[in-house]
Amino acid sequence: MKKIRISIIGFGVIGSGVAKVISKKRDYIKHRHGIDLELVGIGERNGGIACEDGVDPIEAYNLAKTKEMEKHPCWKEEMNGINVIREVNADIVVETTPTNIDSGEPGLSHMMTAFKNKRHVVTSNKGPLAVAYKELIKTAEENDVQFRFEASVGGAMPVFNLVRECLQANKILSIKGILNGTCNYILTRMSTEGMSYEHALSEAQELGIAETNPSYDVEGMDTACKLVILANEILGMDSTYKDVEIEGITGITIESLKLASDKGYTIKLIGEVEAEKLRVAPRLVPKDHPLAVGGTLNVMSLHTDLAGEITITGKGAGAIETSSSILSDVINIAKR
Amino acid sequence: MKKIRISIIGFGVIGSGVAKVISKKRDYIKHRHGIDLELVGIGERNGGIACEDGVDPIEAYNLAKTKEMEKHPCWKEEMNGINVIREVNADIVVETTPTNIDSGEPGLSHMMTAFKNKRHVVTSNKGPLAVAYKELIKTAEENDVQFRFEASVGGAMPVFNLVRECLQANKILSIKGILNGTCNYILTRMSTEGMSYEHALSEAQELGIAETNPSYDVEGMDTACKLVILANEILGMDSTYKDVEIEGITGITIESLKLASDKGYTIKLIGEVEAEKLRVAPRLVPKDHPLAVGGTLNVMSLHTDLAGEITITGKGAGAIETSSSILSDVINIAKR
Repeated sequence: MKKIRISIIGFGVIGSGVAKVISKKRDYIKHRHGIDLELVGIGERNGGIACEDGVDPIEAYNLAKTKEMEKHPCWKEEMNGINVIREVNADIVVETTPTNIDSGEPGLSHMMTAFKNKRHVVTSNKGPLAVAYKELIKTAEENDVQFRFEASVGGAMPVFNLVRECLQANKILSIKGILNGTCNYILTRMSTEGMSYEHALSEAQELGIAETNPSYDVEGMDTACKLVILANEILGMDSTYKDVEIEGITGITIESLKLASDKGYTIKLIGEVEAEKLRVAPRLVPKDHPLAVGGTLNVMSLHTDLAGEITITGKGAGAIETSSSILSDVINIAKR
Repeated sequence: MKKIRISIIGFGVIGSGVAKVISKKRDYIKHRHGIDLELVGIGERNGGIACEDGVDPIEAYNLAKTKEMEKHPCWKEEMNGINVIREVNADIVVETTPTNIDSGEPGLSHMMTAFKNKRHVVTSNKGPLAVAYKELIKTAEENDVQFRFEASVGGAMPVFNLVRECLQANKILSIKGILNGTCNYILTRMSTEGMSYEHALSEAQELGIAETNPSYDVEGMDTACKLVILANEILGMDSTYKDVEIEGITGITIESLKLASDKGYTIKLIGEVEAEKLRVAPRLVPKDHPLAVGGTLNVMSLHTDLAGEITITGKGAGAIETSSSILSDVINIAKR
C-alpha cells in the first residue's frame, strides 16, 4: 500500500468537499488502486491545521461547514496556506482557493511555493492557469514534480485526462464547448419555456445557479478563462485571457431562439479554439448535435486527426463532482 | 526510445488500417511518447509475414487493399495467425479478426495463444470477450501480460480507458448507450425525414452503413454483445450474450417517432445495464439529453457515484477511427 500525504489549501466548498470525498472513498481507493490517501494539512487565509499523523477529514469538513475551523484542536493562526505548503510534509498539494483572473493570487504563489518545495500540485483554480500557464508548467518541470488541473475546466467532466490517457495517438485540431453551466441553464430555459433573458436569469439566481452579480458568467469571461487553459494544454499554445474575442449571452432574445428552433437549431454560448484563434460567442447548434445539451451541463468536442470528433458531457460544477476530477489527478500522480 | 514490436493478426479493413496508422503516426508517437512502434508480423488465415527487422506497414497496407498479400517478399503459407503469434517475437499482438459471437473463434485461440507466449493483447474483436471474458482475463493475469480492448466497443469513442484513467475514484452504478451506428442512422433518418423503416434501411444499405443481411445490427445482437463487455469490465459482472434481454428496431413506425417528437422525445436503440440486468430495447430519450445524438454516432452514459452522469460520444466505426482506440491501448501498455 502506497501512502500519499495530501494538504488542501483553501478549505471552502471545493476544498472541504475534497476532504469529505477522501473520507468517503478512502477504503475504495485503497482496495482498487492500492493507494492510501491521508490528509495531513489544511491551509486557509487566517490559519490552518498541520498534523503529520493525519487529520480526520470529516471532522474538518464539519467544522468548515459551520465556519468554525479555528475550533479544531490543531488549528494555528500562523499556519496559513503558504506555511502549510512550506512546512507540512505533503506529497501533493491540492489547491482550491477561489479563481482570480487578474493576478491569479493567492493560488499562483501557493503553486509556485509547492513546486519549489518539491510537492506535486492538483488544482481546480483557473486563475493561475489563465495568467501564468507557461511559468507554472516550467517551474513544475524544473522541480521534477507533477502539475495537474483536470478540475479547472468542466468540473466532473474529464477533459485533460481524456486527451492525455485516452487519445494519445491523436493530434487535436480544434476544440469547441459549452464550458459555463449558468449560461447553458439560462439559454435552455429561454428556449424550452419561452422565458425572457431577465426572467431566466432571475430564476437561475433564485436557484443558486447564477451569482448576484452574474457578469463573470453571462458576459463570457468564465468561458474565456477555461478556453485559454484548454488551448495552452491541449493545443500547445501560449495564450492568455487577453487573446480571447468574447461575446456573452446578454443580447440573446426569445425571438432569435424561436427562429433558430424552427430551422432545427438551438443557440448555445460556445467557446472555440481553431487555427490559433480563441473565441467565445453565442452560436447556432443543430438540435441533434452532441454539443446541444441542456440544463447546467458542460460539454466539450474535440476534433482529432484519427478519431474524428469526440464529445464529452458532464456536470460542470458541484463540490463532490469537482472532487471526482481532483481525485483522478491525485491517483494518476500516485501511480507514476 | 522504447521499441515496441507489434504483430497484427487478421489483416482486413481494421488490421490493415492499424498498419496504415502506425506508418502515419510513428514519428508523432516517438516524439510525443518516446515509443517506437515497429510492425514485425502479420498473420492471416492462409499465411502471413514474419520479419523481426520490421515490415513496412504501408507496403503491407497497399497489398491488403488489392488482396495480394501473398505477393509480399516475406509471405509464407505456413505463417498463419497462430504461427505468427507463437513464432514472431512481438511484445503486443493486435487481434483484429472478425467477430464471431457463437464460438469467439478464431480470435479466442489467438488471444489464448498470445497470453501463453507472454505477449500482451490489444483487440477490436467482440466475439471472444462476449463468450469467454473471465477466462481471457484470468489467463492474461496468470501469464502476467496485459489485455486491452478499447476498440471492441464504440470504435473511436474511449469507453474502458475513460473509466480506468479518468474516473478512478468513482464507482460506476449503471451504463446506458447507443452502441450501434447502423440502428442510429436508420432511426435518425426515420425521425428527421419521415422515412419508413424499410426506406431508411435500404438507404443505409446503399451507403454501406448497413449489411445486406442487417439482422445482426437491427435486431440488437451487436448492441447486446457490446453491452456484455461493458457490464463485465466496468461493472465487474460475469455475464454472457445469453443474459441480455433483446428487442431490435424492426417494429418501430414513423407514427411512434412522430408521437414521441411532439412530446419533445426521440426514440433510440438503447443498451442498458442496471442492477445486474442487461437490456437492449428502443427507448424514449428527451431531445436535449446527451444520449440524443444523431446519424451513425455512438454514445455512452455512465452513472457514477461522484461525478454524476458522464456521457461520451464518437464515431462507432471506421478503420482509422478504430485504430485510434487500438493505438491508445498499445501506448498505455508500452508506458507501464
